[in-house]
Amino acid sequence: MRLIRDRLAAEVVGFGRSEEKLRRSGELGAIHRGSLDLLDAASEADLVIACTPVQEIADGLLTAVVSANADAIFTDVGSTKGTIVEQIARTPLRHRFIGSHPLAGSDRSGVANANPNLLNDKLVLLTPTEANTREDVTKLETFWRSLGARTETLTPDDHDRALSLTSHLPHVVAAMLAASTPEDLLRLTGSGWKDTTRIAAGEPGLWRQILEENHGHVLHALKNFATISDQWIEAMEARDFDRVEQLLQAGKTIRDIVGNRHPSG
Amino acid sequence: MRLIRDRLAAEVVGFGRSEEKLRRSGELGAIHRGSLDLLDAASEADLVIACTPVQEIADGLLTAVVSANADAIFTDVGSTKGTIVEQIARTPLRHRFIGSHPLAGSDRSGVANANPNLLNDKLVLLTPTEANTREDVTKLETFWRSLGARTETLTPDDHDRALSLTSHLPHVVAAMLAASTPEDLLRLTGSGWKDTTRIAAGEPGLWRQILEENHGHVLHALKNFATISDQWIEAMEARDFDRVEQLLQAGKTIRDIVGNRHPSG
Repeated sequence: MRLIRDRLAAEVVGFGRSEEKLRRSGELGAIHRGSLDLLDAASEADLVIACTPVQEIADGLLTAVVSANADAIFTDVGSTKGTIVEQIARTPLRHRFIGSHPLAGSDRSGVANANPNLLNDKLVLLTPTEANTREDVTKLETFWRSLGARTETLTPDDHDRALSLTSHLPHVVAAMLAASTPEDLLRLTGSGWKDTTRIAAGEPGLWRQILEENHGHVLHALKNFATISDQWIEAMEARDFDRVEQLLQAGKTIRDIVGNRHPSG
Repeated sequence: MRLIRDRLAAEVVGFGRSEEKLRRSGELGAIHRGSLDLLDAASEADLVIACTPVQEIADGLLTAVVSANADAIFTDVGSTKGTIVEQIARTPLRHRFIGSHPLAGSDRSGVANANPNLLNDKLVLLTPTEANTREDVTKLETFWRSLGARTETLTPDDHDRALSLTSHLPHVVAAMLAASTPEDLLRLTGSGWKDTTRIAAGEPGLWRQILEENHGHVLHALKNFATISDQWIEAMEARDFDRVEQLLQAGKTIRDIVGNRHPSG
């Protein structure tokens, strides 16, 4: 949407499986044209961005490479990076693929909810490897910055370890908390419960893939979280409310660093 | 604020420890007058509402009863009810006290953030006992409804059990999740982490009291939550991603019942 509004690309082509959605995307100014044929859509592309569920990214890009320009850059917007980079490392695409992960989004999906300012002041993580040229990394950084984002590079494994703690564990915890609430008490929930469980509404099929791709780091994060849960149970069982207050303060100290302005939407 | 705006009370008197805050409350139209002396503030009151930390509610009301009208109703806005009702049950105030808990609030406190529409369409829980007359319960229900709220009555113990799951556990879980995030990764948090941990910014001193008052139910909720956490760890260790997807779906099913409109503020 912003690509077209700000004339950042000569042609923006959408690939998808639904003619109807591609038509809507065109009407809303998100793409110049759409195609149901990936080879057609990627034809002569300079930049190919995979926006599929994480387990379909490598296959999609390996198809698109056939018709894109020879010096095209390939990237994605997936929530995990290690496995995708590994899959691509075994192919010639490794020189042209650089993983991207925009830390932005909302609970509303679909082109009808597209927002040209979505990336303003948001962070996009790039995970180049030694197979990439500095020039290509700079090109991709420039692309994301032209959409209003800041960028930071880190290794695919550092990315996955960090995100297991800042994104994947929160998702699992929100699902655990929602599942632990009896249905007949839901009318008694307030804004605290709603905030804390909001992301549990995400698509289980998509999140299953993310948790599978980032299995090791997420399991480690879950076990660490269970240790903190044990400390809580121990303090409560001992009626040690000084310790309870310390545990509350430990959470508040971290939370207060991030600040409490409302980030959604 | 709304009491004065909608002329719902002949006189609204604030009691507090800070002259400055009482002055601000007067300027903002939240009270007609303020007093640093509880007996003076409660003098000839028809309705006394304790808005203190939960462990100070019973004492405060037992002081105010001395100067309030003989047929005055006493209530509170605390997050727990069992212990407060028990404390008051041993006193003559038991006939005149009915617990209230408005399920409303925001992360902003202080009279500067007062919002006359805060209770619109929100639920206020009342916890009358057999010591109360039907007439007084109706009076208190009418009071909260005049502020835009809906009301529901339940026993103090049912209230505390329900809130342990819908409010107190979410608070503890948000604190656990925030505390489990390394400080050097906070720049990589997105709106999911921020939503899920938002309430961890609450005051540890106030929440310590809530968790102490509702100790038994919260401990039970925490142990049940730990069971769900164990199921997650088991599924992840077994790389059983069908089971992972089921666990995600269990959370989504509950979350979707409540809906995803933004409730904060």
